[in-house]
Amino acid sequence: MISATFREIISQYEVVFFDSYGVLRDHDGLVPGVDKTIDYLQENDIDFYVLTNDASRGPKELANKFQSLGLESITRSKIISSGMLARQYLKYKVKEGTVTYIGTESSAHYIETAGLKTLPIKDLSLKQIDHIKAMVLLDDEGYDWYHDINKAINLLRMRNMPVIVANTDLTYPVSRGKIALAVGALSEMIENIVRKTFIRFGKPDAQMFHFAYEHVLKTRMVDKDKILMIGDTLKTDIIGGNKFGIDTLLVLTGNTPPDKARLFIEASGIIPDYICESAAI
Amino acid sequence: MISATFREIISQYEVVFFDSYGVLRDHDGLVPGVDKTIDYLQENDIDFYVLTNDASRGPKELANKFQSLGLESITRSKIISSGMLARQYLKYKVKEGTVTYIGTESSAHYIETAGLKTLPIKDLSLKQIDHIKAMVLLDDEGYDWYHDINKAINLLRMRNMPVIVANTDLTYPVSRGKIALAVGALSEMIENIVRKTFIRFGKPDAQMFHFAYEHVLKTRMVDKDKILMIGDTLKTDIIGGNKFGIDTLLVLTGNTPPDKARLFIEASGIIPDYICESAAI
Amino acid sequence: MISATFREIISQYEVVFFDSYGVLRDHDGLVPGVDKTIDYLQENDIDFYVLTNDASRGPKELANKFQSLGLESITRSKIISSGMLARQYLKYKVKEGTVTYIGTESSAHYIETAGLKTLPIKDLSLKQIDHIKAMVLLDDEGYDWYHDINKAINLLRMRNMPVIVANTDLTYPVSRGKIALAVGALSEMIENIVRKTFIRFGKPDAQMFHFAYEHVLKTRMVDKDKILMIGDTLKTDIIGGNKFGIDTLLVLTGNTPPDKARLFIEASGIIPDYICESAAI
Amino acid sequence: MISATFREIISQYEVVFFDSYGVLRDHDGLVPGVDKTIDYLQENDIDFYVLTNDASRGPKELANKFQSLGLESITRSKIISSGMLARQYLKYKVKEGTVTYIGTESSAHYIETAGLKTLPIKDLSLKQIDHIKAMVLLDDEGYDWYHDINKAINLLRMRNMPVIVANTDLTYPVSRGKIALAVGALSEMIENIVRKTFIRFGKPDAQMFHFAYEHVLKTRMVDKDKILMIGDTLKTDIIGGNKFGIDTLLVLTGNTPPDKARLFIEASGIIPDYICESAAI
Repeated sequence: MISATFREIISQYEVVFFDSYGVLRDHDGLVPGVDKTIDYLQENDIDFYVLTNDASRGPKELANKFQSLGLESITRSKIISSGMLARQYLKYKVKEGTVTYIGTESSAHYIETAGLKTLPIKDLSLKQIDHIKAMVLLDDEGYDWYHDINKAINLLRMRNMPVIVANTDLTYPVSRGKIALAVGALSEMIENIVRKTFIRFGKPDAQMFHFAYEHVLKTRMVDKDKILMIGDTLKTDIIGGNKFGIDTLLVLTGNTPPDKARLFIEASGIIPDYICESAAI
Repeated sequence: MISATFREIISQYEVVFFDSYGVLRDHDGLVPGVDKTIDYLQENDIDFYVLTNDASRGPKELANKFQSLGLESITRSKIISSGMLARQYLKYKVKEGTVTYIGTESSAHYIETAGLKTLPIKDLSLKQIDHIKAMVLLDDEGYDWYHDINKAINLLRMRNMPVIVANTDLTYPVSRGKIALAVGALSEMIENIVRKTFIRFGKPDAQMFHFAYEHVLKTRMVDKDKILMIGDTLKTDIIGGNKFGIDTLLVLTGNTPPDKARLFIEASGIIPDYICESAAI
Repeated sequence: MISATFREIISQYEVVFFDSYGVLRDHDGLVPGVDKTIDYLQENDIDFYVLTNDASRGPKELANKFQSLGLESITRSKIISSGMLARQYLKYKVKEGTVTYIGTESSAHYIETAGLKTLPIKDLSLKQIDHIKAMVLLDDEGYDWYHDINKAINLLRMRNMPVIVANTDLTYPVSRGKIALAVGALSEMIENIVRKTFIRFGKPDAQMFHFAYEHVLKTRMVDKDKILMIGDTLKTDIIGGNKFGIDTLLVLTGNTPPDKARLFIEASGIIPDYICESAAI
Repeated sequence: MISATFREIISQYEVVFFDSYGVLRDHDGLVPGVDKTIDYLQENDIDFYVLTNDASRGPKELANKFQSLGLESITRSKIISSGMLARQYLKYKVKEGTVTYIGTESSAHYIETAGLKTLPIKDLSLKQIDHIKAMVLLDDEGYDWYHDINKAINLLRMRNMPVIVANTDLTYPVSRGKIALAVGALSEMIENIVRKTFIRFGKPDAQMFHFAYEHVLKTRMVDKDKILMIGDTLKTDIIGGNKFGIDTLLVLTGNTPPDKARLFIEASGIIPDYICESAAI
């Protein structure tokens, strides 16, 4: 790990990937100072993207959230979400037919833009399942867990189909110190029951970083060693960035508190290239 | 595996342990012929018990179910349930105070007979948790999964306490071909999130068999080699009985269908001493 | 957790179970002061046993080790080892024939006293396997890992048989700060490859405690609440004792160092009834 | 799944990815007819690559194997191995210093071409470890398992460093019906002991497919929907190709025998786009 100021570090890169929650924003709103970081990046022609494990809505709606907090320059094209990878899979591998889903209507709405019909599992009849081509697990909200998780299990016992998990996170923060189960945790439980192999999208998986890199290459030719991943979570942002082959910077404003950073790094064996207190410049 | 008729086999033992669902009863009622098996056991002074992973109610209520199906001789004293072990743990290790629970009121009612107060987690205030001495996971019904599972996770992050899982089963049958998640599956998900070690009761764990054996010894001195475990599930009844050191008999009226028995035994490496079509004599 | 001196605590019990390594002895010999603890127990007619996950030799040889360190009163009848449970399983469930094993000759010698022939897997011909009734994993030493582990895997793919793991520990200490893989770790790897269910003996499994309790009852009638388990490891000694329903005391002379005790308890959710610096009186 | 002849299928693609063992070759040499398939691909200007989980030697040596079997056109540039990804990681993320390894000298030789020094763990002194920048697990051969795996565990307890697993396979075939543990299985055991997060390369991980795709793009612009992955293993080749978003074809000449194909697909939930008896044209 190298010691340098946050400004010195980011000035060496051409592209910065930010995790969202715990890096740019938290339960109180923007992380203090990150607005100036975004300004600095734009002034110095350093490109940036937000890489987020989120399938609860489309990239436009995810961008709106940042804009409402005052980060006007985080537009739809700056968002790389695990939901986008799930949508891509459905578009190119499933192609047509009906996809049944677990999640909110707004999460399904984005999937529909891939040209597939969607059906909430609660509206599915287990007597008419031949038209169901895939199942997608989108969100932990928008349905009755008891009824819909049990229904999903029985559907998968009756019919073999790809199951796509659009967010691998096990939990997400809901307020200071409180968390909630994310759809990634529910999907692991379901997978253990039906003993089938689901297809997962999201950090730390390399595919998320490749997807982002391909997105970057559409507007700017850049080598991987000129990209920096900034995250608050060793087990997603940092290990994922390391494995993909880009430099990584850990901030201490989220899942890794300042007094635990050394312990967490030692215990996990996941070593960031840099550590900074926050993503404020 | 030895070939013999069911009658020949059971006549060699002094005590028989039956699994409940898939052996004595199923979604249609009694498994045909088991009433005569029970008669035969009584006529020949062979004792018998039902060993069941169930914490949804007390042994009296579990016995009532059999009696309502016509098996009058399955009384409260014939029932050995995982809920009884959980209750015993709470009585002797937790001793006093309030236990918060996930499950139905009737499942908690049985715990209260151990002398502890119970509080459904939905009625718990996360601001007043000092009086909570333990958490017990009793049943998959009787509560809102979304709210109460998330509340349980946050409680366990706030306060260190023993967590008792009163039924280790991952699923249970609800009708022909349909299953539902049991509290054992929910507890594994919660344990993975909070990364604490829960205390589990139920087959295949040896403690269930020891508890039953101690129960037997109160009324009859018998060596282990005179006890036979009859079950439909390799991964609970058969491996548990084998490890405890008693003989095991697999019936094909439940989780192990006749055309899959050989495959399941080969794939799992779990080898019963006997296989019979059913527990009918 | 209750605050009291070690002497005050043990004086309330009729039987004490000790873990071996990290409690009574370590890489330097006896833990200082435990000889006086043993004297105190004898003077006060408190019975004691050593519960150890060890299948590397029989109870007589395990007792010899303590006697050579000066604890003359730890005789063969005071030893409860996981190897004894494995031997019991083979004697009563496998009964006759040849058992192939992984381990040292001395570990197999003890198994042979159950009346079974033993054959080291290295001397087995994979062309003549019909007489092999079971496999037992005894020790991490005494064989070539590369050849014999691969041979074990191929044998289990060719023939279905019970596999008994006589020590569930993943590692054991070899000197200050250094550890070695125990046969429990090798067995998990093999089980993952062949995807069969092995039969495991050793703490924290309840069967170890029941076996010890039955052993106690042969010479003294005692209730469980008059037995104390003393151990240095939360994940074996303490959780196992808790679940079995006896009181537990954590000492800080082994796997749980004084400066980590609070952290380990909080992180694991495993709560001993007492904590003492050591088992010295 | 679509029914068509192998020739009809491959004629629709611009690039074909082959798994190696079980598809192109097996323990007897070439899979019959694949030489004509390679000829057909070349005549029709369909490009092809071999994607193999192998870090036992460099791509040149892997290509030599095919050439010695008569597939002259499988040259070094046609090989995409998990060892190449591991080497890339070491080159760009570790950059300099000494890497300690488990494997053969020839496997380490290839890593050295990345500009790093390598040291077999058997030659490492645990008293001088400050210069060790990473550990790489390359192969199951070339070292004493007992000594070197235990040494690796103690090294990782003494010093925090990235650990790279250069082949994720759990086993590999050694002759008809016989398998051997691969380094992927050893690495899972070590990871479970030290509880650190290792960095793994190899199918089914998406990074292997991305690496191959980038390799393809250097010589030919092609969309993903014009690439076909041909493999014999659902859990690596097929799920990996599916998730990456390319079409997949299962052949029945290796890990998935003809009489088990339907069962394996149903049990795993991994559905190839096509099934053919072999990769022979």
